[in-house]
Amino acid sequence: MNLGELTEFGWIDRIRRAAERAGVPRHVVVGIGDDAAVLRPRAREDVVVSTDALVEDAHFRWRTDPGRQVGRRAVAASLSDLAAMGARPLGVTVAFAGPAELPVRRLDAVTAGLLDVCTRCDAPLVGGNVARARKTSLTVTALGAVRRGQALRRGSARVGDRLLVTGRLGEAALSRARAGRTGRVMHTPEPRLQAGQALARAAWAGACIDLSDGLVADLGHLLEASGVGARVAVADAPRRKGFDAACRRARLDPARTLLAGGEDYELLFTVRRHAPSVAVLARRLGVAVTEVGEIVARGLHIEGAAQTGRGGFRHF
Amino acid sequence: MNLGELTEFGWIDRIRRAAERAGVPRHVVVGIGDDAAVLRPRAREDVVVSTDALVEDAHFRWRTDPGRQVGRRAVAASLSDLAAMGARPLGVTVAFAGPAELPVRRLDAVTAGLLDVCTRCDAPLVGGNVARARKTSLTVTALGAVRRGQALRRGSARVGDRLLVTGRLGEAALSRARAGRTGRVMHTPEPRLQAGQALARAAWAGACIDLSDGLVADLGHLLEASGVGARVAVADAPRRKGFDAACRRARLDPARTLLAGGEDYELLFTVRRHAPSVAVLARRLGVAVTEVGEIVARGLHIEGAAQTGRGGFRHF
Repeated sequence: MNLGELTEFGWIDRIRRAAERAGVPRHVVVGIGDDAAVLRPRAREDVVVSTDALVEDAHFRWRTDPGRQVGRRAVAASLSDLAAMGARPLGVTVAFAGPAELPVRRLDAVTAGLLDVCTRCDAPLVGGNVARARKTSLTVTALGAVRRGQALRRGSARVGDRLLVTGRLGEAALSRARAGRTGRVMHTPEPRLQAGQALARAAWAGACIDLSDGLVADLGHLLEASGVGARVAVADAPRRKGFDAACRRARLDPARTLLAGGEDYELLFTVRRHAPSVAVLARRLGVAVTEVGEIVARGLHIEGAAQTGRGGFRHF
Repeated sequence: MNLGELTEFGWIDRIRRAAERAGVPRHVVVGIGDDAAVLRPRAREDVVVSTDALVEDAHFRWRTDPGRQVGRRAVAASLSDLAAMGARPLGVTVAFAGPAELPVRRLDAVTAGLLDVCTRCDAPLVGGNVARARKTSLTVTALGAVRRGQALRRGSARVGDRLLVTGRLGEAALSRARAGRTGRVMHTPEPRLQAGQALARAAWAGACIDLSDGLVADLGHLLEASGVGARVAVADAPRRKGFDAACRRARLDPARTLLAGGEDYELLFTVRRHAPSVAVLARRLGVAVTEVGEIVARGLHIEGAAQTGRGGFRHF
């Protein structure tokens, strides 16, 4: 059976049942099935919203990307934006477009992937849309809540701030490059929601952005919004053991992959100079953190990457 | 110049400037340009969210649909879902996907259309996404707020309720049919936001749904959710003067066009029997309303449309 035979309503019904099986938290007043979903934030909370899309051929290919991974990545990318604002998730909506020929087992795999991340991140699937299109795309809108006035911003970095990053860089880019050989993209980003929320509560927090286009490109957005510069040491960029060798086997330049790889979905953030040590920060944020540089008055000084420049991931 | 030359960031910047010129209300704490937007509902409000998509070839064609109309329809469809819940808008996000060859003047026309409706409905454009795709699509997520527990539902109709509809039916379907001759689809739906909000405040309100798939199909959803039936008279369905003749000239069956036309984006709602007269209701809701039938225990009885059945608009 395929999407055309199942029909739009058939699939929506299937998604609804899967979402209900995954569990509906109490703050969901109305879930899937009415004209809109209704969610209840706590008193004195602001609402945070971000929309992101995963498009066939631009961001994934059915040839190399398993349906479950596609679903996971779509939700993870939007939740990562909530993490970067320090918000806790209230729910997500998913607008799916795809051809009538899409097999239902692939649709079910995508749904399972969406719900994997929804469940893990406590971000219920509360609505969406299904439409026909020649190529598949998933547009995910994530809704969150943050204590009034406490949202993390890109523009809050100050000269003297320490610059840090969560987790490890370059994994997604390396996985994509390897898919040429192994045939499958297996990397799933982990939205750093707990870390973002802990950061939003901290008095020593500065600016924050999530890494979707690569460290150098996204750092550029943070610096521009803050009106400052930064000094970054490539040697300090967090990578897993054997990363450089794995890059070279995949014909990637290790420094470029770390700095401009894209789709890392780690948080890049600054803290005031008097903030706790890296070890204490890691404990507070509940995730590995690495200090990669500092905020200076102007310019972007990258030590140890002469030819890298401001590459990033350009959609056009 | 086209989208590929302008680049993703170039276009986002262009949209951001246009949105800022259109005005940013005070409840927008963070608008376009950070990882996510931040909106501030009032105390004791629930948050309402709905996502809808307009897809090239499925919902519009560049050959017959002017860019400005495409933008207007995309936003109007999502805001109509807020109207059906009785919510006031907080903001919208737009995920745009399209080919690199799209001329910038068409992109600007789409943006102008989006902002036409955003401005008219006090629903600021607060974020979104731009991605490359072979065909164009616009996925709009509308965010709104409604007093806690007051959201209108599909499932609140009771036997004995009067069944009413706002505005006129069949206009969108007629306009689409005529576009074959005139070359242009000129109909813009009007989200019934004021009417929905007034209804949500009224003690005599029953169920509510917006008409996207056609009166019969959407009434079916309302009846199913409420566990009731309805009696509807085609002769009472509101249409403009000369509608039946215009349908016949466009080779459409008038009754079928009224009942299954789709994309009307009027509100179909029920009120308790003791609610005010139609004239008073129209004044309270600020829009023309017509009584088209009543809620009965079971079945869907359509008087005056033997061959119509439950057609509606199927996406697959």
